[in-house]
Amino acid sequence: MKTGYTILLLHGPNLNLLGTREPDVYGTRTLDDINREVTALGEELGADIKAFQSNSEGALIDCIHDNRDASGIVINPAAFTHTSVALMDAIKAVGIPAVEVHLSNIHSREEFRKKSFIAPVCIGQISGFGAFSYLLGVRAIVDYLNNRIGK
Amino acid sequence: MKTGYTILLLHGPNLNLLGTREPDVYGTRTLDDINREVTALGEELGADIKAFQSNSEGALIDCIHDNRDASGIVINPAAFTHTSVALMDAIKAVGIPAVEVHLSNIHSREEFRKKSFIAPVCIGQISGFGAFSYLLGVRAIVDYLNNRIGK
Amino acid sequence: MKTGYTILLLHGPNLNLLGTREPDVYGTRTLDDINREVTALGEELGADIKAFQSNSEGALIDCIHDNRDASGIVINPAAFTHTSVALMDAIKAVGIPAVEVHLSNIHSREEFRKKSFIAPVCIGQISGFGAFSYLLGVRAIVDYLNNRIGK
Amino acid sequence: MKTGYTILLLHGPNLNLLGTREPDVYGTRTLDDINREVTALGEELGADIKAFQSNSEGALIDCIHDNRDASGIVINPAAFTHTSVALMDAIKAVGIPAVEVHLSNIHSREEFRKKSFIAPVCIGQISGFGAFSYLLGVRAIVDYLNNRIGK
Amino acid sequence: MKTGYTILLLHGPNLNLLGTREPDVYGTRTLDDINREVTALGEELGADIKAFQSNSEGALIDCIHDNRDASGIVINPAAFTHTSVALMDAIKAVGIPAVEVHLSNIHSREEFRKKSFIAPVCIGQISGFGAFSYLLGVRAIVDYLNNRIGK
Amino acid sequence: MKTGYTILLLHGPNLNLLGTREPDVYGTRTLDDINREVTALGEELGADIKAFQSNSEGALIDCIHDNRDASGIVINPAAFTHTSVALMDAIKAVGIPAVEVHLSNIHSREEFRKKSFIAPVCIGQISGFGAFSYLLGVRAIVDYLNNRIGK
Amino acid sequence: MKTGYTILLLHGPNLNLLGTREPDVYGTRTLDDINREVTALGEELGADIKAFQSNSEGALIDCIHDNRDASGIVINPAAFTHTSVALMDAIKAVGIPAVEVHLSNIHSREEFRKKSFIAPVCIGQISGFGAFSYLLGVRAIVDYLNNRIGK
Amino acid sequence: MKTGYTILLLHGPNLNLLGTREPDVYGTRTLDDINREVTALGEELGADIKAFQSNSEGALIDCIHDNRDASGIVINPAAFTHTSVALMDAIKAVGIPAVEVHLSNIHSREEFRKKSFIAPVCIGQISGFGAFSYLLGVRAIVDYLNNRIGK
Amino acid sequence: MKTGYTILLLHGPNLNLLGTREPDVYGTRTLDDINREVTALGEELGADIKAFQSNSEGALIDCIHDNRDASGIVINPAAFTHTSVALMDAIKAVGIPAVEVHLSNIHSREEFRKKSFIAPVCIGQISGFGAFSYLLGVRAIVDYLNNRIGK
Amino acid sequence: MKTGYTILLLHGPNLNLLGTREPDVYGTRTLDDINREVTALGEELGADIKAFQSNSEGALIDCIHDNRDASGIVINPAAFTHTSVALMDAIKAVGIPAVEVHLSNIHSREEFRKKSFIAPVCIGQISGFGAFSYLLGVRAIVDYLNNRIGK
Amino acid sequence: MKTGYTILLLHGPNLNLLGTREPDVYGTRTLDDINREVTALGEELGADIKAFQSNSEGALIDCIHDNRDASGIVINPAAFTHTSVALMDAIKAVGIPAVEVHLSNIHSREEFRKKSFIAPVCIGQISGFGAFSYLLGVRAIVDYLNNRIGK
Amino acid sequence: MKTGYTILLLHGPNLNLLGTREPDVYGTRTLDDINREVTALGEELGADIKAFQSNSEGALIDCIHDNRDASGIVINPAAFTHTSVALMDAIKAVGIPAVEVHLSNIHSREEFRKKSFIAPVCIGQISGFGAFSYLLGVRAIVDYLNNRIGK
Repeated sequence: MKTGYTILLLHGPNLNLLGTREPDVYGTRTLDDINREVTALGEELGADIKAFQSNSEGALIDCIHDNRDASGIVINPAAFTHTSVALMDAIKAVGIPAVEVHLSNIHSREEFRKKSFIAPVCIGQISGFGAFSYLLGVRAIVDYLNNRIGK
Repeated sequence: MKTGYTILLLHGPNLNLLGTREPDVYGTRTLDDINREVTALGEELGADIKAFQSNSEGALIDCIHDNRDASGIVINPAAFTHTSVALMDAIKAVGIPAVEVHLSNIHSREEFRKKSFIAPVCIGQISGFGAFSYLLGVRAIVDYLNNRIGK
Repeated sequence: MKTGYTILLLHGPNLNLLGTREPDVYGTRTLDDINREVTALGEELGADIKAFQSNSEGALIDCIHDNRDASGIVINPAAFTHTSVALMDAIKAVGIPAVEVHLSNIHSREEFRKKSFIAPVCIGQISGFGAFSYLLGVRAIVDYLNNRIGK
Repeated sequence: MKTGYTILLLHGPNLNLLGTREPDVYGTRTLDDINREVTALGEELGADIKAFQSNSEGALIDCIHDNRDASGIVINPAAFTHTSVALMDAIKAVGIPAVEVHLSNIHSREEFRKKSFIAPVCIGQISGFGAFSYLLGVRAIVDYLNNRIGK
Repeated sequence: MKTGYTILLLHGPNLNLLGTREPDVYGTRTLDDINREVTALGEELGADIKAFQSNSEGALIDCIHDNRDASGIVINPAAFTHTSVALMDAIKAVGIPAVEVHLSNIHSREEFRKKSFIAPVCIGQISGFGAFSYLLGVRAIVDYLNNRIGK
Repeated sequence: MKTGYTILLLHGPNLNLLGTREPDVYGTRTLDDINREVTALGEELGADIKAFQSNSEGALIDCIHDNRDASGIVINPAAFTHTSVALMDAIKAVGIPAVEVHLSNIHSREEFRKKSFIAPVCIGQISGFGAFSYLLGVRAIVDYLNNRIGK
Repeated sequence: MKTGYTILLLHGPNLNLLGTREPDVYGTRTLDDINREVTALGEELGADIKAFQSNSEGALIDCIHDNRDASGIVINPAAFTHTSVALMDAIKAVGIPAVEVHLSNIHSREEFRKKSFIAPVCIGQISGFGAFSYLLGVRAIVDYLNNRIGK
Repeated sequence: MKTGYTILLLHGPNLNLLGTREPDVYGTRTLDDINREVTALGEELGADIKAFQSNSEGALIDCIHDNRDASGIVINPAAFTHTSVALMDAIKAVGIPAVEVHLSNIHSREEFRKKSFIAPVCIGQISGFGAFSYLLGVRAIVDYLNNRIGK
Repeated sequence: MKTGYTILLLHGPNLNLLGTREPDVYGTRTLDDINREVTALGEELGADIKAFQSNSEGALIDCIHDNRDASGIVINPAAFTHTSVALMDAIKAVGIPAVEVHLSNIHSREEFRKKSFIAPVCIGQISGFGAFSYLLGVRAIVDYLNNRIGK
Repeated sequence: MKTGYTILLLHGPNLNLLGTREPDVYGTRTLDDINREVTALGEELGADIKAFQSNSEGALIDCIHDNRDASGIVINPAAFTHTSVALMDAIKAVGIPAVEVHLSNIHSREEFRKKSFIAPVCIGQISGFGAFSYLLGVRAIVDYLNNRIGK
Repeated sequence: MKTGYTILLLHGPNLNLLGTREPDVYGTRTLDDINREVTALGEELGADIKAFQSNSEGALIDCIHDNRDASGIVINPAAFTHTSVALMDAIKAVGIPAVEVHLSNIHSREEFRKKSFIAPVCIGQISGFGAFSYLLGVRAIVDYLNNRIGK
Repeated sequence: MKTGYTILLLHGPNLNLLGTREPDVYGTRTLDDINREVTALGEELGADIKAFQSNSEGALIDCIHDNRDASGIVINPAAFTHTSVALMDAIKAVGIPAVEVHLSNIHSREEFRKKSFIAPVCIGQISGFGAFSYLLGVRAIVDYLNNRIGK
């Protein structure tokens, strides 16, 4: 097993409200709770977690550009999943392997939430397991980096 | 942590060919390999794995009906993902929590493969991590059973 | 009134679970209950009822082929309503008059449940009256056979 | 069995021509014939039938409003089936259980005749049995009133 | 040449305003002017013209039913062109040959004005020649009646 | 401020049931209540209110034609919002400035209720504020007449 | 009445077969018959008819360019109605008023025959009266030229 | 009447140009003018107005998050109306009642401007009355807060 | 010319009824007749024919898997043509060159019969020549195997 | 077996480049090679082959008209397959039985190449076998002429 | 810089009218003017310009075939842009690098003018600069030939 | 020739990565290289170039607002081309003539990249010539400013 990965953990718009917003849908854990849990699991799997949240599409893209040497990305694009071609281009441009995660099952919600601009430039998508989706996402990216089983 | 779960591990059409068919897309592990790995992880997490594969939609539905006392389902519906209302109805009817998994990232393939009839009746979907998707799926269903965090 | 009709009573996938599955939608009567009620009404109207259920599309088609001398068909295609061109072709091929029945009102459910491949090759469709839909269906097919008023 | 139901029997546009118009499609019975048959069956089942036909959408809505104390509605909306949101709203507004009936099988005719604005606010739909559809409709509404099995 | 035809001249909603409403689109002649011109041409061609206008769909249908012995219909359905299945059914039901006319060119206006429910049950359609469309329509129906060349 | 406006207050189909029908959606005020409140506000703003309700599309159009000298229209077209090209043509034909109002928020209901044939020929649309929508509508039309700021 | 108009009479692909091809749909008159009848009516109305048929889109466009001094065009674009943007552009480019005619009622045939690229750049469209459509078309263009009532 | 409401007044992209940009469409008042008028009306109705404009989607979302204790929102999302799922999620997440307003009548402009992502999470929408739309919006939100008549 | 090919001849649902079902559409030859003719031609071209029919999608897929050493496939998927992603995946998975054949011309029937899931994974498609389609299909696959000209 | 058939062999646009253009897709045989092979097979089957290629839609239509006494047509419409209603009309007009052939499998290429205007007026379609498609096409048309098994 | 390029300058249907047709849209320069300007610029850049215009799709394709040794193509396909698959195939078949140019901005006109069949087989598209588009097109193709930077 | 133009040169999201990102698609020149080349050409043509790049939609809009006195805009909106109504509104609001440029040929890429919200408010679009597209864009805007030939 290799060690020393750096994983960029990106959170899209409105996720800063986590734990206070619609807890029956998104769970009661705050974003800080999630970042702590992900960091702990990362440590266990040999990966440094670098977390960032923004409500601005441009700030998220800047963050991806500024971390071009990261080993992998775990991203919950939230509402940008369905509208942002620019975020898709950013991930594709830096060439870092990425995993898309969602708290809720986007495939059982409104029609427009089923389409993802981000998924086609990711290794895969994990959707519907609450905060646990992030933990699965970290396992997935580390497994990918260990094996490069890729596309 | 509770123990003694029984997890139904369902494989849809053509997955019996795994390991020999388009290995660049689906990896080189056979279905037996995967079943062995999933069983090992299940053991570690306190869950019995009961695996079944069929190329027949009816046989898969019968299997779900015959195992109505299972704790959870991990299912890779393969091609039935996109066409089977009957399989969707079966999962909904027995009321067992289910997780949908896919070897390849169905969101970056042909348009018709992006639509899933099964996902809306599952807790969530995991797609794109090769055989590792199954392992993530088992973790997800066990975590769900332990916490009942669900929708 | 003529007598001695044989009516094939076909039940599609998941209907074997009837009475246990989502009773608020589908009622509490089991499939055996329904078969008994239909048989009783058939007797009263001068018709033998021959019931068959399967979760397999192929088995239902085989059954139609094997009963080509039946006077009429009352069929609840369940989920196959919306996906099976093969079942449609089977009914058309044997040339037996058929009536499509549904427990729930398929026109007030999800969009994809409104489309029926089976209805265009039937005399008519009855939808939404719970188990009573079957009784109306048997009355409709017998009336049709007595009068041959149809199109 | 309860008694004393009042059933509103509504006929939409052009149905006053029944018996003279395209008899190969709609049968040779006139609207009066049908009203008589429905009334006789109603009597037998313990229900008063109150029949009304109009070519005007507004007159049909007025009639529904003026009979808000009816026990049930059996309606053949004819061409308004496919265009009248106002009629749909009227049925929903008075809250009387309703059954939609059609002489011909609307599901095997032109594409635009498959869509019904009325069906989603009814208990169910009966389509394709000629004048017999009305008789089935009366049986269905009385059965519904006797059992309140509905959704 | 035969003589003694009776032609029903039907005008749909808002046409009573003709001559005062958007004269740059619909010309300055009033509906009375048009009825006079059509009547004069009818006389010349051996046809009695029976004119009727209403803003109510039901009244137009009633009028068609009440004139089932007419030789032909010239109809400007106005806004009902695009929405009335009931008017379409009425024309089809009485079996009187009909010609659809429009003052403006409906094919060069808004998208929704290009679709006509009425045209498929007419011999043909004349659109875009102002009040002259009515005169062409009368010529067309009389020619049709004289020759029965039609489909 | 000018004075002496006459405002036509039009109510479409089923609105006569107001106060009794689905009060959780449409409020408990009756149509008479609303007419009284609108009249009072009109008085305060210098405008005579002339109210009319009908379930018939033709009657509403006739009413618009018969009041061609009105200063403005406030109309709740109800179900005709989504289906009536004829009503749209009537408003356009008389050339009176109009404001469309709705009790419920039509943009958060069924898909077909989002489309309005009437809105494009109005100054603007107010939707979702219960009976208060009418009061806002009267303020809007009077403001428009005072300023002629409109498009 | 003005005199001395020159009317370009254009016939699209396959119309050279007229009289021999599907006579039950298109009548038994040949193209020469039609040209003679149109010429005779033209003479009566004070217009020279200049007829041209081609199976080639380019040849029809060339012909329109070469006759830029014509007073009007009567065109049956046949199959090019539904596919030729180039023919549409040609008519628009020369700025000659044009009338589109069809032998059969294109609105009651296949879906793709209902769309016309040509109609939006014409004064109007006449469809469904067999060879008589041409005579109506000539009357329409001459009336237009005499009155310039058009759009 | 309650007092002491705080109303967040949000202006979307390009609205800072108001008064200078396309004055025939959007009027000649500047954003400052509008803020002053709204503030004055707010005072009269017992509400503090807190105004904010940005061309950045992220800044608008941040502003909503930072004012989670506001009593209500009046928002003109401008171009974000049609594209921003993130803004929609933000309004839904904080749970503050909101009213959507537009200067121009979005229902009579380009097709893509008719769809609003924001309207379904608002109480209602007011569209087409120039700067007066804001004043109606403030009246609507205060009336809502006073009565809680809502959905 | 090479020799010793094994050709899998697959027949989809309802084809067992051949010769008795709609003979005006499908001809009078039975499936046994066709198998005999194909076998004779195969012999002549140096190919063993191995025929199989089933009404079950799963059985057809099993058969393809069980004959992975076949040289080629000639398949008439019948109704599965339009619905079976699983059959498509099976053909693609085993990598055997295949030819799709149809008795009737699927391109001149109902709209939904024009779409084939199978054709994109075949060398080519032959449609419309009755039982002769099979003979052309065998010639095509043998020619392909002899030349490997394909894509 | 009858003798003396004349078969029109039509090649659409760009096929004159055959053998030089994208040989990996279309093979290395030139159009002359194909014509020679088809002629030889025709001779063997008792049919004269009359070949013609053009890049002009009009020239192809003229050719069909000029050969109205041909026994059959084998046509590769190339790009006109997807755009030419006129060519479709020409084949239908002359009433000669026709077979559509394609070198490549049009069902596995771009979406717009799957639609054929020509196929619905042909006996059948053969697609995907390189130059061998022509030979299969000739066999198909001769078999058809010998048996008149057709539609 | 290389020298001696031959550039084929192709003009589609109706462009022969340039300078006389809708000058406010297309400018006042004639096609000869444009050809002269392009030739002068070509000379300056070391390229011979060979110009050709036709209203016939077939003639344009023939011209491309006959100039297979040209270095590059600058083409204004005019109306064929949106309808000609054959022209697209011709450019692709000869393999000459091509640039698509348009006088007007096709992206701000009718919806159907936004789709180009030609653009996907060109290096790029230049649209909206009047006759200057041609000059930019020549610069683009020469730059491309000098650098072969392309795709 | 006039002099002294100021041209705003805008670069959308991810273009800061130019030269390092997918060089086979976008070339090896960095954004600074391009800015230098454009500046040099601007100097030659008498125009000052003012360059700005941002990954944020809001920042780009602010920049357009802050430079309302610029003579022209050359903009590569990158991913915002397909999603930003706000950017479209900004360009329209300030009324500065603009030219849209793209490095790659957006018309030969994914379907969603063919639609541009920006193009309809620009003079024209140049797409597919690598960094040379910018140089053509500057020539186009200067030519436009010199001649004001535009629409």
